[in-house]
Formats: sequence, structure tokens, C-alpha cells
Amino acid sequence: MIGAVMDFPRFKRIPEHIGVIPDGNRRWAAARDLPKESGYASGVPPGFDLFEHSRSLGIKEMTLYGFTQDNTKRPSVQTAAFRKACVEIAMGLTERDAALLVVGNTDSPLFPEELIPFARQRQVFGKGSIRVNLLVNYGWLWDLSHGASGATKPSEFTGSLASSDISRIDLVIRWGGRRRLSGFLPVQSVYSDFYFLDELWPDYCGDHLLEALRWYEDQDVTLGG
Amino acid sequence: MIGAVMDFPRFKRIPEHIGVIPDGNRRWAAARDLPKESGYASGVPPGFDLFEHSRSLGIKEMTLYGFTQDNTKRPSVQTAAFRKACVEIAMGLTERDAALLVVGNTDSPLFPEELIPFARQRQVFGKGSIRVNLLVNYGWLWDLSHGASGATKPSEFTGSLASSDISRIDLVIRWGGRRRLSGFLPVQSVYSDFYFLDELWPDYCGDHLLEALRWYEDQDVTLGG
Repeated sequence: MIGAVMDFPRFKRIPEHIGVIPDGNRRWAAARDLPKESGYASGVPPGFDLFEHSRSLGIKEMTLYGFTQDNTKRPSVQTAAFRKACVEIAMGLTERDAALLVVGNTDSPLFPEELIPFARQRQVFGKGSIRVNLLVNYGWLWDLSHGASGATKPSEFTGSLASSDISRIDLVIRWGGRRRLSGFLPVQSVYSDFYFLDELWPDYCGDHLLEALRWYEDQDVTLGG
Repeated sequence: MIGAVMDFPRFKRIPEHIGVIPDGNRRWAAARDLPKESGYASGVPPGFDLFEHSRSLGIKEMTLYGFTQDNTKRPSVQTAAFRKACVEIAMGLTERDAALLVVGNTDSPLFPEELIPFARQRQVFGKGSIRVNLLVNYGWLWDLSHGASGATKPSEFTGSLASSDISRIDLVIRWGGRRRLSGFLPVQSVYSDFYFLDELWPDYCGDHLLEALRWYEDQDVTLGG
């Protein structure tokens, strides 16, 4: 378990940028005979824990999969709960040491109004030691086709993405047992390593991150070459 | 091991479309003190085995990761070897029961000339029982930006892909121990399940496919919802 002090194991290398898919909130609640939607609130404190652990380890950027346009087809009691959880994560980050950007389709009543300022431009809190990208009402097709009509050559394509301010991801970590991306940033993930944990997201503890980083340090980096 | 007769286990469900990343050819050769490039030729017969196994199991479409634009930065003795292996796979499929399409950038001397007819349109051999897409000199950025200047709304984007004739992939299977997509069809893989095997590709046997399908049958299908 990562403590408050800097007693971390040393790694040969750590990822510059991690992608985080915090899945399993509803299954976590259901396993406790709680209403499914209550799982999202239980997923908020682990988000701050992971943030602090990542920052302490020297990770420079993290992207959290908040919710997607696909997710908004769920029952409204659930959509309300995960929208609230995303607002709480963002507001909590304003009191921490982060440079926060929210990325998602703001042209929808499902995008929480409180988050619009963070979607306009990245905002620095504290020393802004770690860039945090929070995907809110994100859609892979919305992202990829965003500036499609403007790009006339390949080199312009990545700059035309709705997520163009999010850099290439080194390591995607997914909780909750599924082994898929579920539409998570297709372009930034083309060369990413994937680490999957069976544990459900609200059960996050620092050992999960260390386990992923221990696996990652032994992977090679080829960028497809 | 899958035999020539139809004595397969029954699955609750099988994927309609599998993606295949046949990695580990060079490591397989190096482990035998053979020149690295010789591994690609050893990867050809397993390709036909997997094809026959997949066809017999009722899989409707398979996409094989031949080589990418990234891969062509390797030493020329290697690029020559994997280009030859791709030609052999394609030619072998013309003598089998497949509907073959080659997808990749043909505007390059690195694209094997013999494969140009298969890149123009899908060609049916035998009864064409299984659609086979072979990625040759493929690049994710080339694919995504292909028709970018023509698409003016999201619904037109997927139709503008260079790989628009390749359908959504249900299950991506990767041999060789790495857990990443390495630029493999970012759009068709957005909702795919991923199955990773440590075995190197030239060591393919039917049990690998059965193992992947056994895992896959217990996964849910949410398409991000």
C-alpha cells in the first residue's frame, strides 16, 4: 500500500501518461445489495487516491474515463449519479495540485453545466504538477470526426481531433475484469500497453497501481516499429 | 487440438469477426538461433491453420495484421521477408474457400505488386465462406485520415475510412505476449474484447483459438452502453 510518505519502490521506468478506465461501480453496489447507481459515489474517493498516488510517483499526465455518450443511454437515475460523480471529481481536483482539462461534447444537456469552464481551456490548480484529463460525455466518433472536414492531409488529422490536447497514452489501466477499450480515446491508445485488473473500481488501492507499473516497466517500447 | 473432422466443442456464442495479431515471429526464430527474418516464413503455415479452424467453427470474418507502415522502418532483409509472407498468405487463400480483401496503402513501392488486384476489390474463392481481410502496408493514420476531407458529419466518418469495407471486430487475439493494439484498426476495435497469448505466433495450434473462444463466450456485449 502506498503511504503518505515517499516510500515507493523504484521503477526502471514509469509511464508519462496513464489512461484510467474505472469500471465495475454498478457491480460493486449490486454485490452489496445497494442500488446500482449508488456505486458511482463510491467510485469518487478512489479517484482522488489514484490521483495522489500517481502524482507522488511522478506520472505527468492522467486521463480518467468519466462517462461517454454511449453511457447516457442508461436509466436516468444512473446517468444522474455518474454525472454527479464527475462533477465531484472535477471540483475536488480544483483543491489539489493539478492542471485540469475536461474533454467531451458540451453541446448536450447531458454535459454538466458546472464543468463547462474546464472544457474551454485547461485550468491550473496548485502547482499544476500533473495534467488531468477528465472525459465527460465523450464519444469516440464525436472525437474522431470533430475536425474531419478541415483536415486535408494525414498530418493535420490528429490536430483536428476533439481530444487534440490529450497526448499519446503509454499505459491504459482498466478495473472491473473486462478486457476492452469501450471507445476510450482510439487515437491516443494506438500504441498503449493495456493492463486489466479483475478488482472492481470502488475497491481501488495503491497496490493496484504498483502492480500495473511493475508489469509496465518490463514492457518494451516499439511504437509499432 | 482441432481435427479435420467437425468434432468441435459447442460454444454459447462465437465472435462473428476476429482480429488476429500474429506477433513473435522474430523472437521465435532468435530462440532457435535462426536469423530473425526467417521467422516470418514459419508464420505462414499457422496462418492457414487458423484460417481453416476459424472457417470450420463458423466465424464469418477475420482480419489478419500483415505488416504496417511502422514495420517498414525495419532492416530490409526483414521487410522483404514479411512482404513475401503476406504474398504467400494471399496466394494460398486464392486456393481456399475465402472472400479476400487486402487493405493498405498501395501508393508505395513497399506494397507488393502481386497484391494490388486484391486491394482493388474483394475477390471470392471457393464458396467465399469466410471474409478475410489482410492488412498490408497498413497505417492507422493513413486509415483514419483517408477520406477526412470529405466527411462533413460524424455519420460520414466511418464510411470515409480507408478500411471502410472491414466491419466491427468482436474479438482481437494477439500472440507473442504483448498487450497492445500497435495501431491495429482503431475504429473497428473500439468495442472489441482483447485476448492475449504468451505463445509466439509460429507456435500456433488450434487450442489457442479454442482457449480464446472459451474466454470470449463468457464476456458480455454492451457496445459501450
